Amino acid sequence: MGARLIDSLVTTEALSEAFSDAAVLRAMLDFEVRLAAAQAQLGLIPPHASAAIARAAVVDTFDVESIAHAARASATPAIAFVQALTARVRTTDADAAQFVHWGATSQDVVDTAIALCLARARTLLADDHAHLVRALITLSETHASTVMLGRTLLQPATPVTFGLKVAGWAAALVRAWSDVAAAFEETLVLQFGGAAGTLAALGTAGPDVQVALAASLQLACPDAPSHTQRDRMARLVCSFAVYAGALSKLATDIALLMQGEVGEVSERGGRSSTMPHKLNPSGCAVVLASASRLPGLASSCLASMAQAHERAVGGWQGEASIVRDAAQACGSALSAAAEVIDGLTVSPARMRANIEATGGVMFAERATFLLARTIGRDAASRLVTDAVSTTRASGTTFRDVLASMPEVTRALTADELASIDAPESYLGAAEIFRQRLIAGATSSLAP
Amino acid sequence: MGARLIDSLVTTEALSEAFSDAAVLRAMLDFEVRLAAAQAQLGLIPPHASAAIARAAVVDTFDVESIAHAARASATPAIAFVQALTARVRTTDADAAQFVHWGATSQDVVDTAIALCLARARTLLADDHAHLVRALITLSETHASTVMLGRTLLQPATPVTFGLKVAGWAAALVRAWSDVAAAFEETLVLQFGGAAGTLAALGTAGPDVQVALAASLQLACPDAPSHTQRDRMARLVCSFAVYAGALSKLATDIALLMQGEVGEVSERGGRSSTMPHKLNPSGCAVVLASASRLPGLASSCLASMAQAHERAVGGWQGEASIVRDAAQACGSALSAAAEVIDGLTVSPARMRANIEATGGVMFAERATFLLARTIGRDAASRLVTDAVSTTRASGTTFRDVLASMPEVTRALTADELASIDAPESYLGAAEIFRQRLIAGATSSLAP
Amino acid sequence: MGARLIDSLVTTEALSEAFSDAAVLRAMLDFEVRLAAAQAQLGLIPPHASAAIARAAVVDTFDVESIAHAARASATPAIAFVQALTARVRTTDADAAQFVHWGATSQDVVDTAIALCLARARTLLADDHAHLVRALITLSETHASTVMLGRTLLQPATPVTFGLKVAGWAAALVRAWSDVAAAFEETLVLQFGGAAGTLAALGTAGPDVQVALAASLQLACPDAPSHTQRDRMARLVCSFAVYAGALSKLATDIALLMQGEVGEVSERGGRSSTMPHKLNPSGCAVVLASASRLPGLASSCLASMAQAHERAVGGWQGEASIVRDAAQACGSALSAAAEVIDGLTVSPARMRANIEATGGVMFAERATFLLARTIGRDAASRLVTDAVSTTRASGTTFRDVLASMPEVTRALTADELASIDAPESYLGAAEIFRQRLIAGATSSLAP
Amino acid sequence: MGARLIDSLVTTEALSEAFSDAAVLRAMLDFEVRLAAAQAQLGLIPPHASAAIARAAVVDTFDVESIAHAARASATPAIAFVQALTARVRTTDADAAQFVHWGATSQDVVDTAIALCLARARTLLADDHAHLVRALITLSETHASTVMLGRTLLQPATPVTFGLKVAGWAAALVRAWSDVAAAFEETLVLQFGGAAGTLAALGTAGPDVQVALAASLQLACPDAPSHTQRDRMARLVCSFAVYAGALSKLATDIALLMQGEVGEVSERGGRSSTMPHKLNPSGCAVVLASASRLPGLASSCLASMAQAHERAVGGWQGEASIVRDAAQACGSALSAAAEVIDGLTVSPARMRANIEATGGVMFAERATFLLARTIGRDAASRLVTDAVSTTRASGTTFRDVLASMPEVTRALTADELASIDAPESYLGAAEIFRQRLIAGATSSLAP
Repeated sequence: MGARLIDSLVTTEALSEAFSDAAVLRAMLDFEVRLAAAQAQLGLIPPHASAAIARAAVVDTFDVESIAHAARASATPAIAFVQALTARVRTTDADAAQFVHWGATSQDVVDTAIALCLARARTLLADDHAHLVRALITLSETHASTVMLGRTLLQPATPVTFGLKVAGWAAALVRAWSDVAAAFEETLVLQFGGAAGTLAALGTAGPDVQVALAASLQLACPDAPSHTQRDRMARLVCSFAVYAGALSKLATDIALLMQGEVGEVSERGGRSSTMPHKLNPSGCAVVLASASRLPGLASSCLASMAQAHERAVGGWQGEASIVRDAAQACGSALSAAAEVIDGLTVSPARMRANIEATGGVMFAERATFLLARTIGRDAASRLVTDAVSTTRASGTTFRDVLASMPEVTRALTADELASIDAPESYLGAAEIFRQRLIAGATSSLAP
Repeated sequence: MGARLIDSLVTTEALSEAFSDAAVLRAMLDFEVRLAAAQAQLGLIPPHASAAIARAAVVDTFDVESIAHAARASATPAIAFVQALTARVRTTDADAAQFVHWGATSQDVVDTAIALCLARARTLLADDHAHLVRALITLSETHASTVMLGRTLLQPATPVTFGLKVAGWAAALVRAWSDVAAAFEETLVLQFGGAAGTLAALGTAGPDVQVALAASLQLACPDAPSHTQRDRMARLVCSFAVYAGALSKLATDIALLMQGEVGEVSERGGRSSTMPHKLNPSGCAVVLASASRLPGLASSCLASMAQAHERAVGGWQGEASIVRDAAQACGSALSAAAEVIDGLTVSPARMRANIEATGGVMFAERATFLLARTIGRDAASRLVTDAVSTTRASGTTFRDVLASMPEVTRALTADELASIDAPESYLGAAEIFRQRLIAGATSSLAP
Repeated sequence: MGARLIDSLVTTEALSEAFSDAAVLRAMLDFEVRLAAAQAQLGLIPPHASAAIARAAVVDTFDVESIAHAARASATPAIAFVQALTARVRTTDADAAQFVHWGATSQDVVDTAIALCLARARTLLADDHAHLVRALITLSETHASTVMLGRTLLQPATPVTFGLKVAGWAAALVRAWSDVAAAFEETLVLQFGGAAGTLAALGTAGPDVQVALAASLQLACPDAPSHTQRDRMARLVCSFAVYAGALSKLATDIALLMQGEVGEVSERGGRSSTMPHKLNPSGCAVVLASASRLPGLASSCLASMAQAHERAVGGWQGEASIVRDAAQACGSALSAAAEVIDGLTVSPARMRANIEATGGVMFAERATFLLARTIGRDAASRLVTDAVSTTRASGTTFRDVLASMPEVTRALTADELASIDAPESYLGAAEIFRQRLIAGATSSLAP
Repeated sequence: MGARLIDSLVTTEALSEAFSDAAVLRAMLDFEVRLAAAQAQLGLIPPHASAAIARAAVVDTFDVESIAHAARASATPAIAFVQALTARVRTTDADAAQFVHWGATSQDVVDTAIALCLARARTLLADDHAHLVRALITLSETHASTVMLGRTLLQPATPVTFGLKVAGWAAALVRAWSDVAAAFEETLVLQFGGAAGTLAALGTAGPDVQVALAASLQLACPDAPSHTQRDRMARLVCSFAVYAGALSKLATDIALLMQGEVGEVSERGGRSSTMPHKLNPSGCAVVLASASRLPGLASSCLASMAQAHERAVGGWQGEASIVRDAAQACGSALSAAAEVIDGLTVSPARMRANIEATGGVMFAERATFLLARTIGRDAASRLVTDAVSTTRASGTTFRDVLASMPEVTRALTADELASIDAPESYLGAAEIFRQRLIAGATSSLAP
């Protein structure tokens, strides 16, 4: 009963594997095996018990379906899982069976298992992030001086460089990743508190077991269990959502630049089932489809934070599915974005052509500021507005129209007039900004 | 790579099956087979082609994994699916292969397949809804005169009946279901528009094929295709969310009533892994966990409605996963709620005991209104406020305190005073309201 | 302390007024005045009390600031409001003061006041909806045969008509409005239940007062109070969100069509502060900005449905602000969309030019289907794919390329070849679909 | 047209003021005045112009209503605002009027104004946060050894201390605030990029003006403008949402502990309009009502991140209202929570009584672990399960039942048996965990 057809656009194969039944089961078994090992080492349970538990922890021998089925009766898969493990241990060492899950509670094993699955997801996401940012840095450097239309409210504004646009994407992803990484750091902690979060069943040994177990699982050891303080998980999901939001900006830009009428970039793209002339921004579609899942998932996770007392009725029990979906959708968007950038074709010629197609009126602001030096902004505005109208009515260029206006030729030098519509000469601080952003992105990747 | 461990609390087995790869593939094949049949009947494609396509449409022979893998390259599973079907048809009838997916577009087959999966979900949800409402009607009738504390802001207010509380649950579910049913009615439509929604490849035959195909698939035939008008699907997901919200109110009430300190009802419940004395509101936990997914899913679906032109880059491609999750989470909450109600134990004695434990001060409003008839509300309020304080300070009952106050005994009859803390005599219109609500719920189930 | 600068893009002046302090206060006073009148008529309170309460209910004499300030202490503005009204009544009729808010609870007056404010919003929205749909019907009829590029994934697909695109907008709005209207019908109900929803303080007279009060306020009378069953309000907010989603599709299309490089339509638009050549899709920006608020508001309203017992701690107390924001944002989007359509300029010439600019390759599907009749789809696909490549490489037209291919000229008639890139002849069922959609929209406006 | 009645529960007076028309206008004027001053200092505009602009920048002389009205036509209040300022400057210095808003774009002034308003909000929130955390630390210390029921799934589990519960609240708030503070640090930046984000109108002087202006406004100077990279704002709103989520956990716990049947704590609370015996958790209601707004606001902000090119159509124009609502709702929840804690009454006696009311069965886990040492867990479990049943059936205590079971008296010492239901002796690491959490909270407040 897989769901790959519906899920294929909102997860990747590696991230499906990271949260698969096998992966979750392996993580739950890891928790129990290492818990027993730590307790044996501290003399709380007999060594043979720890050994027997380790021997029984073979993923393939568990019947996931029946554990999942039983989960609904107790609102957690942990109880049926512990029973199955216990039964398995009992077959080889009846005494050892009594020490399975010793002093732990259901939420301990589930929360920790999810943290272990997230640790795997972190690696996958981090690799793709670094790959994507590296590719964006290269792309930005390549197109440091490739001029193109700046577009505000989807209308031609003043020129920018493609290198600056790409640097903006990279910088946002770097900022967002910095928060994802910090959130992972905080979230990949051991959950181990026992029935009510005090580890009372372990007497005074609780904190020692906690420290040893965390180290063994390569998870951080928190100050205290946090069965009903879900800020860490909510923050992680929010950080995924911000990151995916930054990806969605990149994909929106590319899909718009790839429009038939614009044609400035092209991803490798996908084909249509019936239209051989089409090349679709399929990668961008996957980015945007995946990213569209995140805001809602973040809101679900946030709305579930009002959890009662020492273990909630409801908020917690749905969290794993939300966190999993969020990690997968974020990773799916990231993976698709990396492929888009890896295969991106850029057309500097079309970028310049689209500038020229404006007839030069996009340099109206520039003309206004140049004229304003000598005749004041009000007069300059009036002149330029007239020139824009004339340009549009006549089908000639803004430069020619300006050259025909005596008030203009008096106020501008011949050089200024000649280069009035040269995009290279109206880029302001574009390259300074680009270099700063790329420097930040580059240093973020340093080891 | 199933995900039953994580998903077990937010879907049911039947709903997992309804959107499984097998179910989706079957639905996609149904679309193609019946499309070919309709076109053959209308003379658009040769009969042998239709027959060959039908022969090739055997679910088990498709490699779902490779279709899902390929889906990411074109942002839809449809292209790889159509190629796989075509290849399969070609092995028996090369000419027929040319008529696979004739005149249709990728979104046609995907949208229609999801509609077919949703039709199955509708049946599952409708059955559970009817079962639950019937159980609630019975429960309400049984407890028509079972008095209990009304609680506002979690504090004792004036008395209500358990029957009224249950009737309130039922009525909200009936209202919400009426909207779910209407939304299903609108959403279970054929999608068939071809490349840009005009069915141009079929010449003038498009509308006839549309009508025949819809009838064959038992879906409604809409006025026109709606590739980028997603209001129907958004409305359906919202209706699931409202329905699940109504379930979450029911589950909240039950979990609160089942608290150790309250003890007025109990679901069959789940056991703790380490605490034998515990009986948990596990069913309520599943209801609330599942319901907590819906608001976020609704917001995702709504936020994806801004779809460009004739097919979107992004909004649509993530929709199926959202709709699937919403149907499953709603159904999971519903199924759990039905089990909770089926196994509910009610303790009228404890309900009465909790009323008595207030010492009668919860009848302060009643006393005020009775006294106000003769001494005015201001004086009544002062007297009653004093009586409440005295009751609390003395540990005696409110009735005894009132009986000791001459201003009170002058104003109330002996009968009034004697029954001042009889909950049965301060229920106002509770039974009238209950009967109206139950009448509405009952008639909603009529065939 | 108004907030018009920040709110100006997400509400209208009329909708600000509909939920202003004055409007809310007037509605609360209406509730109390008509409650007293109904109770006087039924003999529950003395006639002079009703008269005194009516006399005291003068909006301008209340100190809203102090009521709002006091609201935080009791988690409702109702208590301070009732105290203020009572004090005001007392100045003219001390006895009457005792009958203010007789038998009602805080939530009764607040919920009913919001319903009254929503009734005003309904009128505003309904008028704008009818205006917009009428304008869209006219626009669609005018452009019934105006051909334009169909665009899928932002790439040229096959042709459509602008009239069909507009009809799609209209039909979605009509469907969505039908749900808004139904949700209003269900939501504009009296809330009147007293302390715990039983109207116990009124003895047996509760239902009679309920009926009389509802009639007097021109609200529907529900079967029972529903202090903690919030499905009606959640459904209303969801219906606003779906409606706004349909508006956002319209605005997305228009903003994209208005791009400099596309230029097919133009709204009256807004000016830039520094760029005289610019005309911005400002109206679309307001539609999209307003619409972007709705999905989140819907999720908030939905997530608040799990309300405990007879009055919630928390879910209800924030609802009014959510519902108000939702009604205003929906109305703001609607009002802006109506202005966009009223001022829309359409350029059929540019639409045709953009079709021609594809060099005819957008008719590749058409050529394939025509050729397939005689040479089969596989061969046709190969030929057409070659022709598309040749067209793009050579800079000539698709028609000329096809005309130079003997396999093609053998298979197509001269007429077919001559009109292969005539968009009018490849519209399929566009006009049939358009007429069906417009017929539905038209009949939805019939009285 | 204020909206204090509806907004009173989701904002505070100070935060209403921080985003009021007056505050926004003042911030917008600040931007323009300091921009002119920086440009004059750098020799870009004449000193008299800067002086004239400063003179004209008097908040009270602007007609906010007409600016707000005009905002809808251009999708920003900035254009009408700049026109109004320019007109005002012109009355005293016509030449100076030409230098208003020199080189800036509408989004520059709006984004920066919102950042300035947020700086004020930061101070308000930071003060309340520090106050609340200090109060929680004190409360936790006071109740370090106050035992109470641990409750999981709302059922009695094993004992905890109230001090630990409070420490859990504090620690979550401290973690969440640390992210809010970091997000403020990143978000309180100058926005200054001109028409397309390159500051081209300022020639090469752009970056110098940027640095000087940021310093003058006490905002950080970012690497580059980020008109369409909204990750900072989205992250800030998410951090508010996580913080409010942590508050909602605290409020949920308190409202539950304050239930009539539990009675372990009490906030000062609010009164009912008709029930003198009631004391409502009104503060908790305000916390939860305010907090319920945040998840939806976060999702709206996140879903708006897909902004096109150099300035978006739609996503940005609605952002200010979302950010404002989020800051206010978070601050409202925080302020209410601080009042709740300041006025909290704790009843250690009732906490102990509720433990005793379980008859000791909540120590079943403890008994199991003690017995398991000698007879193994399986046998222990069976014995204890029997003892729990006997206790419940007989109405005696768990301790007495155990004492009557020979298998138990053989396995436990007399001391162990005597103290089997002493909560103090089954607290495990509660105090260690509490101290760690409080140490972290304390050090977070250090200057």
